[in-house]
Amino acid sequence: MVWEDVQQIRAQAPLVLNITNYVVMNTTANALLAIGASPVMAHAIDEAEDMARIAQALVINIGTLSAPWVESMFKAGRVAHERGIGIVLDPVGCGATAYRTETSQRLVREVRPSVIRGNASEIRALVHSGGNTKGVDSRDDPDAVASDAMELAQAAGCVVSVSGPLDLITDGTRVARVANGHALMPRVTGMGCTASAITGAFVAVNSDIFSAAANAMAVMGVTGEIAGAGAAGPGSFQLNFLDALYALDQVQLSTRLKLTGLVAG
Amino acid sequence: MVWEDVQQIRAQAPLVLNITNYVVMNTTANALLAIGASPVMAHAIDEAEDMARIAQALVINIGTLSAPWVESMFKAGRVAHERGIGIVLDPVGCGATAYRTETSQRLVREVRPSVIRGNASEIRALVHSGGNTKGVDSRDDPDAVASDAMELAQAAGCVVSVSGPLDLITDGTRVARVANGHALMPRVTGMGCTASAITGAFVAVNSDIFSAAANAMAVMGVTGEIAGAGAAGPGSFQLNFLDALYALDQVQLSTRLKLTGLVAG
Amino acid sequence: MVWEDVQQIRAQAPLVLNITNYVVMNTTANALLAIGASPVMAHAIDEAEDMARIAQALVINIGTLSAPWVESMFKAGRVAHERGIGIVLDPVGCGATAYRTETSQRLVREVRPSVIRGNASEIRALVHSGGNTKGVDSRDDPDAVASDAMELAQAAGCVVSVSGPLDLITDGTRVARVANGHALMPRVTGMGCTASAITGAFVAVNSDIFSAAANAMAVMGVTGEIAGAGAAGPGSFQLNFLDALYALDQVQLSTRLKLTGLVAG
Repeated sequence: MVWEDVQQIRAQAPLVLNITNYVVMNTTANALLAIGASPVMAHAIDEAEDMARIAQALVINIGTLSAPWVESMFKAGRVAHERGIGIVLDPVGCGATAYRTETSQRLVREVRPSVIRGNASEIRALVHSGGNTKGVDSRDDPDAVASDAMELAQAAGCVVSVSGPLDLITDGTRVARVANGHALMPRVTGMGCTASAITGAFVAVNSDIFSAAANAMAVMGVTGEIAGAGAAGPGSFQLNFLDALYALDQVQLSTRLKLTGLVAG
Repeated sequence: MVWEDVQQIRAQAPLVLNITNYVVMNTTANALLAIGASPVMAHAIDEAEDMARIAQALVINIGTLSAPWVESMFKAGRVAHERGIGIVLDPVGCGATAYRTETSQRLVREVRPSVIRGNASEIRALVHSGGNTKGVDSRDDPDAVASDAMELAQAAGCVVSVSGPLDLITDGTRVARVANGHALMPRVTGMGCTASAITGAFVAVNSDIFSAAANAMAVMGVTGEIAGAGAAGPGSFQLNFLDALYALDQVQLSTRLKLTGLVAG
Repeated sequence: MVWEDVQQIRAQAPLVLNITNYVVMNTTANALLAIGASPVMAHAIDEAEDMARIAQALVINIGTLSAPWVESMFKAGRVAHERGIGIVLDPVGCGATAYRTETSQRLVREVRPSVIRGNASEIRALVHSGGNTKGVDSRDDPDAVASDAMELAQAAGCVVSVSGPLDLITDGTRVARVANGHALMPRVTGMGCTASAITGAFVAVNSDIFSAAANAMAVMGVTGEIAGAGAAGPGSFQLNFLDALYALDQVQLSTRLKLTGLVAG
């Protein structure tokens, strides 16, 4: 299943529109290219709707949000929703400031994403507005927020994908877990944002959103393991990650994959 | 000729002002540093003209355009034009949205660039407004747009440089081609933008714009080949590209160079 | 002393808020993660004050300044000043345009940074407004600006940290020098900005600002030496730098460190 999605991404090269943050634009574009998708990064109010009309998926990431960008997120989001393409929301730093929490909540309510992908504290802050978060690199245990994730998935009517040592993906009923990954991943900026961008590529080719979101995290985790195995630190990890994503094959996936719960919750 | 330009860039370290996109700012600045130029990335309306006054070349790249940036492009462009320094325009994604097509056309008309450097679909969209393009990574055969490139060069009174498996550079009369390059180049974000930035360094030291634009593409292609030879994927390609650009020597160039048509069309 | 600060950064993972430039956001976030700090990059007027309230240090970098960002710099700066957390100002390109010089001077006057960290020409332009600078990569000999640095430190009541072949750090009375570093450092974009970001991590854990600023430059220089030793050019240097910063240990520091003047001027 995971491998089928990877093959579809490589065959279709889906156009993934990213309205994302400055920090990760280069690295997420490169990750999307490495897996075989066609990234577009654009944010102008003057073209947000036009871009959303030609995209196969939309990724909204509030990492360096500001008023004009948020306006474009809503514009693109509305078109994406009307067209029925997959929408991934990464509420980066939700909980760190009122502006992030409120913007995230409005995006969930009005854009109605297909997938909300964040870390444990961001998901917690979305559910219990006012939860504290230490910025953007929280490393909580995802089990602690399993109930938050399910509550959010049910309330928002979408899939929630929580990254951490053990990734958790839920549609409010079923729960999948990915036990892959590497300790260097939180030491490289934007790996979570990369997971969101890659999730965009998967929802572009797989209309079973729960499965697509879980498969994306599986590919992130397996690729992270391969990258980490030969890395001397976060610099070589980044390089290896792109190389490994580009070269990922079925044997690597089937040998390493630790994905559970995709069928039954 | 190519080598002479490289030597001049290394000797003069020309200041290349880039009003460019967020995705590639880091990588194009690094490419300019690697070849020996002095990059400046700036976009504020409050300083666009002042920056253009001290630059030896201007590179305008609309990859993540928005209204205030476009205003600065025109401001800097007018000063650059008055001063007679080389101006390179990269109409990224031209054809993907009306906003990009119209902005590109206005920039061509009002800023009058020395070189328009894009991929085949962007050049086609500039000539036949309304042509379709799939975002920013079109991989068309440049031969298919040779007539478009010549038409655009004649209409705009500038050099047109089209990247692809076979690069094509024309001043409307003469046509040069570069057969160098590597299959990994379209799998790394911003290699086209890097070509535009590097073209800026060449036009800063070589007033024969047709020759400068062709030499820039030759260096891109040869460096890409060297980088690709030792790369396991797009991650190591990027690293190798900067190392190879920094270390590029006359023997590598003369051994690998596949540049034709620079003298007669 | 240097090693103690590194250990404290790794133990405390201080939250360093960066209002910085587009070119280096990714690389400075990665450098902060590599040394063990928690970077946040944010710039919206709507959250600048809230972010400054939860940060342990603030880094202001004007590399790609524009009006709305400058407004946020002042907002965050005022909160940071009230809270008494360390503030590092990097006046990138000060002297290149009137806008940069005036903005830098206003930031010094109104935000009152703990550390001003720049290259020789930027520091000179801050002292003698109107000094000429060739953009952002000046490579002047820091000795030539020792008196400028001391004058600025005294006038602004802060520590001034000047990078160059021989780094110079002064509080207006004492002068420390770091003779570490590598010739490839000026060939990688944003190494100066990285020095400023890393200085932010040091002032977050060491309230002796003069010592913290000098220790930060010592770590930059030693890490640069280690990275440069195995580098074939600026591409591999960047990778090695992050790996080396992540793996830096006490033996490497004590063996290589060339830091003088930290106790007496």
